[in-house]
Amino acid sequence: MRLISDTIAMIGPLDRTATEAARARQDQLTKPQGALGRLETLAIQIAGITGNARPRIVQPTVIVMAADHGMVRHGVSAYPQEVTQQMVHNFLRGGAAISVLARHVNARLLVVDIGVAAELAAHPQLLSRKIALGTRDMTVEPAMSRAQAQQSIATGIAVAAEAIAQGSDLIAPGEKGIGNTTAASAVVAALSGAPVAEVTGRGTGVDDAGLARKIAVISQALALHRPDPADALDMLSKVGGFEIGGMTGLMLGAAARRVPVLIDGLIAGAAALLALTLAPAIQPYLIATHRSMERGHQTLFARLECEPLLDLGMRLGEATGAALGISLCQAACKILDEMATFGEAGVTKKV
Amino acid sequence: MRLISDTIAMIGPLDRTATEAARARQDQLTKPQGALGRLETLAIQIAGITGNARPRIVQPTVIVMAADHGMVRHGVSAYPQEVTQQMVHNFLRGGAAISVLARHVNARLLVVDIGVAAELAAHPQLLSRKIALGTRDMTVEPAMSRAQAQQSIATGIAVAAEAIAQGSDLIAPGEKGIGNTTAASAVVAALSGAPVAEVTGRGTGVDDAGLARKIAVISQALALHRPDPADALDMLSKVGGFEIGGMTGLMLGAAARRVPVLIDGLIAGAAALLALTLAPAIQPYLIATHRSMERGHQTLFARLECEPLLDLGMRLGEATGAALGISLCQAACKILDEMATFGEAGVTKKV
Repeated sequence: MRLISDTIAMIGPLDRTATEAARARQDQLTKPQGALGRLETLAIQIAGITGNARPRIVQPTVIVMAADHGMVRHGVSAYPQEVTQQMVHNFLRGGAAISVLARHVNARLLVVDIGVAAELAAHPQLLSRKIALGTRDMTVEPAMSRAQAQQSIATGIAVAAEAIAQGSDLIAPGEKGIGNTTAASAVVAALSGAPVAEVTGRGTGVDDAGLARKIAVISQALALHRPDPADALDMLSKVGGFEIGGMTGLMLGAAARRVPVLIDGLIAGAAALLALTLAPAIQPYLIATHRSMERGHQTLFARLECEPLLDLGMRLGEATGAALGISLCQAACKILDEMATFGEAGVTKKV
Repeated sequence: MRLISDTIAMIGPLDRTATEAARARQDQLTKPQGALGRLETLAIQIAGITGNARPRIVQPTVIVMAADHGMVRHGVSAYPQEVTQQMVHNFLRGGAAISVLARHVNARLLVVDIGVAAELAAHPQLLSRKIALGTRDMTVEPAMSRAQAQQSIATGIAVAAEAIAQGSDLIAPGEKGIGNTTAASAVVAALSGAPVAEVTGRGTGVDDAGLARKIAVISQALALHRPDPADALDMLSKVGGFEIGGMTGLMLGAAARRVPVLIDGLIAGAAALLALTLAPAIQPYLIATHRSMERGHQTLFARLECEPLLDLGMRLGEATGAALGISLCQAACKILDEMATFGEAGVTKKV
């Protein structure tokens, strides 16, 4: 699909001039060199992403992709499928965790119906981009067709492009989809080659029997389809989900436009792995926000070669970790832009 | 001193009714139980501190205590003593890291001159509470008298009380004082019994020779004075600093008024250890915000029995880590207060 290949081709290296200027400025600011740790390197990274030596983040946007999963019939979640659509309403009415945290960091919140198994009422914050009424059951057939996999990624790219055209200068992808930790773990297992049990966790909180069912469902699907780990579309179509493809698209679309994009939990991490498979150049653009309690997240970060900013024992998804990361990205950029240099402040430099 | 003992007597246990109500509400909110990790336990702790089952933090205040240190003549810092007063001006003009981060989290910023070795010009954000023009050289005499140690703690209590009377609902103590990691490491070594080299780091960035001088200065002072680890005033007067005593006072004063108080880096941690020695009941009030890169911080947290929220490789002090913690405390409280319950949102509970 042309949109996807064109977007991938747009992802260039970080802007070295901006990176070096940001680094040089950090060392002039009134603090010992490096004393602000990750806040310093984060601002330098954002300078390289944006091409601006003193970047600012003033209009962050949280974009939650929502979709359903055919394999939920096997009892892989502690919640019934209808919770996906119920939570979409909760997002839009402002009562969900991501609604609260997006308000806290003054981020715009958009929800994309990319495959919820119900017709949803129109709402100003809801983008209707439904590909199907949920995926199919990956234990018996591919979760989606290859064309649908392409469509999910293209949808994410288009949504990112639209948000950025409207002024968004940071994208925080999130998700909702009962069953999606099963799909995400399948993607991570397929891509990393790690044993299924090692990258499969309790998601919303299944008991031991539920966890065993998740592992069995993933193992069965992988054995049936043998997805090609070098082919992101093959993996996404066989064992993925519409919201995972949508998030992959958001990441590609943001990086192509030099807009920082944050990685939330396990599902976002799986989407990032797919993005990295499609576009290895995206690696320096990745900003991992938090270490999820969900099993498999550590395997992910090793593959993505990035270290998360936060480790707060969270495992909710929705972009809740990414929302907290927005505030850190803004803080990092303000430090770089607003702090006085030794010269400006008349402070004696290190002896 | 009466103010100190009265304040200590005011520190009661956490409010169990509020704690239990907060915990019960967390489990009704539209997320799997415990899925927001530290954000959940933090909000429950703040409920217990404040006695409010749905607490809010709307007027946080960063209070930076500034003072100088007599032992700097021995070359324990990479910066000359005049940097303390220069940085106070930088704080007040808005160009320092803490100025930027306090603005980022919408916190009020106050600076207290509790012992800077210079007369400072008046400023609306500067409280003049100078005890002396810096401490004395602890390698040859006590850093301060016992009466001055009491005065420094009483000053912190009074400043906290005043800020709280003006509406502050969270206090983030910070510090500035060239030489103060040497004083703080001396306090930590004396209180914990840990070897000096194990709790002494590079502070603003001294080289190997500077680090060796720091360790020698601390060892010499401890050998000379043999401070009593059961007597906080003895330790503070012999090897501490005015800003350390001031921060101890801020912590006691806030806890006595049921206002959350945050622990920043190594110096704040040393102040918290002194507060804990004076008032063991303060332990459940402690909120550690970040793991500093400065050596000795880990020993501190083991003694304080609390785990920091952030681990961002920071080592600046000034309350920079605490400022980031303010945003997390606010986020945690908003989650508890603003999220919809399963019943309110019409979301099906766990099956």
